[in-house]
Amino acid sequence: MQKLKVSFLSIVSSLKERIGKLDMKKVIHSVKVGIALVLVSLLYLLDPLFQKVGQNAMWAIMTVVVVFEFFAGATLSKGINRAIGTILGGGLGCLAAILADKSGEIGGALVVGISVIIIGVGATYTRSIPSVKKKYDYGVMIFILTFSLVVVSGVRADKIMKLAGERLSNIGMGFAVCIFTSFIYPIWAGDELHSSTATKFDKLATSIQGCLDEYFEIANDKEKQPAMDMSGCKSVMHSKSSDESLANFAKWEPWHGKFGFSYSWEKYLIIGEVLRELAAMVLSFKACIQSVRQPSPTERESVREPCEKIGLSLATILKELGESIRDMKIYRAKILVTQCIRRELISLLVNSENNSTDETTLGLSSFIFQILEM
Amino acid sequence: MQKLKVSFLSIVSSLKERIGKLDMKKVIHSVKVGIALVLVSLLYLLDPLFQKVGQNAMWAIMTVVVVFEFFAGATLSKGINRAIGTILGGGLGCLAAILADKSGEIGGALVVGISVIIIGVGATYTRSIPSVKKKYDYGVMIFILTFSLVVVSGVRADKIMKLAGERLSNIGMGFAVCIFTSFIYPIWAGDELHSSTATKFDKLATSIQGCLDEYFEIANDKEKQPAMDMSGCKSVMHSKSSDESLANFAKWEPWHGKFGFSYSWEKYLIIGEVLRELAAMVLSFKACIQSVRQPSPTERESVREPCEKIGLSLATILKELGESIRDMKIYRAKILVTQCIRRELISLLVNSENNSTDETTLGLSSFIFQILEM
Repeated sequence: MQKLKVSFLSIVSSLKERIGKLDMKKVIHSVKVGIALVLVSLLYLLDPLFQKVGQNAMWAIMTVVVVFEFFAGATLSKGINRAIGTILGGGLGCLAAILADKSGEIGGALVVGISVIIIGVGATYTRSIPSVKKKYDYGVMIFILTFSLVVVSGVRADKIMKLAGERLSNIGMGFAVCIFTSFIYPIWAGDELHSSTATKFDKLATSIQGCLDEYFEIANDKEKQPAMDMSGCKSVMHSKSSDESLANFAKWEPWHGKFGFSYSWEKYLIIGEVLRELAAMVLSFKACIQSVRQPSPTERESVREPCEKIGLSLATILKELGESIRDMKIYRAKILVTQCIRRELISLLVNSENNSTDETTLGLSSFIFQILEM
Repeated sequence: MQKLKVSFLSIVSSLKERIGKLDMKKVIHSVKVGIALVLVSLLYLLDPLFQKVGQNAMWAIMTVVVVFEFFAGATLSKGINRAIGTILGGGLGCLAAILADKSGEIGGALVVGISVIIIGVGATYTRSIPSVKKKYDYGVMIFILTFSLVVVSGVRADKIMKLAGERLSNIGMGFAVCIFTSFIYPIWAGDELHSSTATKFDKLATSIQGCLDEYFEIANDKEKQPAMDMSGCKSVMHSKSSDESLANFAKWEPWHGKFGFSYSWEKYLIIGEVLRELAAMVLSFKACIQSVRQPSPTERESVREPCEKIGLSLATILKELGESIRDMKIYRAKILVTQCIRRELISLLVNSENNSTDETTLGLSSFIFQILEM
């Protein structure tokens, strides 16, 4: 009995461990997709519903699978793109189909073929224009798809308007289910952008301190090969595309948490750009550390204390800026630290000459001033 | 008559101008999509074909719109993902549908509901794992879609196997049309990656020279605000995600041009990474130029000549490396320039102390050595 209990407990704990390893946000998202799929399947499974919607229930399932994205803003943007693309494509398709219907058999086929090629070429070119691609790529694709399907099947179907209307209502149902499930425990792109921006400050602070530690460790131990971990810094440097897509989704999101309507997500992109430039500077520390031309240990030791002070101040300022963004508050301490660092800088200006690390640190701090002035 | 001719000529020339502004590659791609759409529409338009495929021709049109991508490799990867996703999802869906069929009315509905939620949750979680997302995102999505559609419509359709087979063959036809049109004047992701890597060298060379010019121009004209164009440098720094997706597509592409099978696209990513680090260093020149602490004009003038020499050598090396990548040849001149720069560096070591730009230039050249050693 005791043995059984022990083995049961060990199974439970190993399960807990495995679940602990899973990313909870991803699990919640997956469960929501599963629930949304079952909800739209009911259109097929329940007789009274099926008699109303028929085979077109397929379109509701397709909408859920294709539109349901990780972030609530992405789901909204894709859904609205899909809806507008379907309405425009369907409308134009119906017009073309009616025109084809009135042009006789061979004339009709010609009208269909020519309209498909004109819309296909034109819309595909529009899709490849960067500004359209960024925001409306999916909408234009659905526009081409719906137009082609409607105009081509118009040749064979008698009640083209009825068919188009039914499909549209099914896509609407699928979209409604998506929005409904997406907004239970929603995962906001805005929150993600907000917290990732705050984390960037921490990453840079850690990188700066890591670099300084490494630099003075070489001084103590000449044999040691410098082995820095610049991954945090590099991830900041390569964050442009993910930031942009997050901001893009965040703009679609309604009021939530501390973020109101028309919240200025652009500012996060500006901060991100400045942080990326800062990351580039921190990364170029690497050249100083790995360079063949190293100052002598005594030279190095002489600037150790002021350098470490500056590094610490920089890291503190960065961490505090990150904190203040995270909490959306302006900390008074920030200004104090700035003044303190300014005093230190002036006192250091004299003895920091002739040393490359200090030089770079100065460049860095002039940069931090820019951030502070933002 | 003369007037008519003149106005006709002016129309022609303005048309030519407009066409000249269009990106020819994008135009070719758009035309190919249009042709592919018309080809699959024939399945509907021509009676003998329609009698064979029926309403399922819809799936061929859908496949063309969704799968046809700008790069041939992207089309191939999406098409193969779609095919495998459809086959696996359809197979599993058929099994589940048969099981549901044998479980009676209420039991069947339960089987459908439970299988949809299990597959939906599991596959959606798999989709969000980064390594799967990178390569097989679309395939997993199609797997979920096909499984749901097959298992759910299995409740209502008698000949589920026949339906699934017909849809699959239509998707196959759509894919075949895509591949056929895609491989006429193909746009290879591999070519794009190759030429963009070569262009990066040129961009960096231009940026380095621009920085040096700017730096010594401030010396001559104190009033002038430094206004640098770092866009080339920044575009190199932010190229990580586009490089990775290009390499991802390039791996799917068959033998073409100078690129054989299993060509090592990974190496382009490594070169790209090194170039991004170099770009970060060039970008940190900006701090030197915009810094409040500027050396006196005489100081600056004294290092002008050696700095410009180094800058020119660096730019030449970079351009030649770019050239040698572009032509896939190793130029002997490369080694000559390196030796020349090495001599120059040694002669400069003495008088380059105490100056930040030179310091950074040295850091840069130590970096270039790394590139040369690659």
